[in-house]
Amino acid sequence: MTEFAPDQAFVVTSHFLGDLFLCQARLQCDARWPWIILIPRRAGAREIEDLSPGDRARLIEESVVAGQAVRALGEALGRPVEKLNHGALGNITPQLHLHVIGRRSDDVAWPGPVWGFGTKVAYAPDDLERVIGAARRGLNL
Amino acid sequence: MTEFAPDQAFVVTSHFLGDLFLCQARLQCDARWPWIILIPRRAGAREIEDLSPGDRARLIEESVVAGQAVRALGEALGRPVEKLNHGALGNITPQLHLHVIGRRSDDVAWPGPVWGFGTKVAYAPDDLERVIGAARRGLNL
Repeated sequence: MTEFAPDQAFVVTSHFLGDLFLCQARLQCDARWPWIILIPRRAGAREIEDLSPGDRARLIEESVVAGQAVRALGEALGRPVEKLNHGALGNITPQLHLHVIGRRSDDVAWPGPVWGFGTKVAYAPDDLERVIGAARRGLNL
Repeated sequence: MTEFAPDQAFVVTSHFLGDLFLCQARLQCDARWPWIILIPRRAGAREIEDLSPGDRARLIEESVVAGQAVRALGEALGRPVEKLNHGALGNITPQLHLHVIGRRSDDVAWPGPVWGFGTKVAYAPDDLERVIGAARRGLNL
């Protein structure tokens, strides 16, 4: 049986925040939006239907917690979230994962989706620690 | 207490398929992708967090059923689905809704998201009845 590990694509574009009951939570390294990725720790899963019903219920509960953490991140960044966006796409990186993103009507991609939009912006090193702290507190980690 | 009704934006861009236990299911009127919209029949809900935990578990289960129906639609259209995309955005129409879309590596927007991409393509009238039938069977309606 293969053990779970996050795809290398996530390792190079996001920061480990912690492990929830089901998912590994990671901060997307893109300062344009407060953005958390949840990766169910189930080796081989590619679609939501690949999870058991119990894991699916956990996934949606953890997505709500991630939404609260994204709101906390938005506050820490001085840009309170107006709308949450949730998406499970996986067209580029097929390992099952769920994006939870905080949107504002003044953000650069509004009202379109963020995936594939423009060029990512790195967090300033001094901001990163503060942002990771806010995300972890929001996730109760 | 306000009764549930689908936002007019959905009424003019999608076809009623039927009511599941929680959600109203609708076929997106865009022949480019097999695409079902689920609208939880809870007046005033805008975010997934606005639903009760029980309703959230129902929503993710109904999203799995919608995914199976989207796969059936893809077969009916002669374009079997390679990847499901699930998204709850609501940046334009805030009434809580979940998109379930069937993607292929040869579709026009691949690997980007479909929302806001290009111009929608109407189903041919002769196709529409067949497609709606396939979607309803896929949803066990």
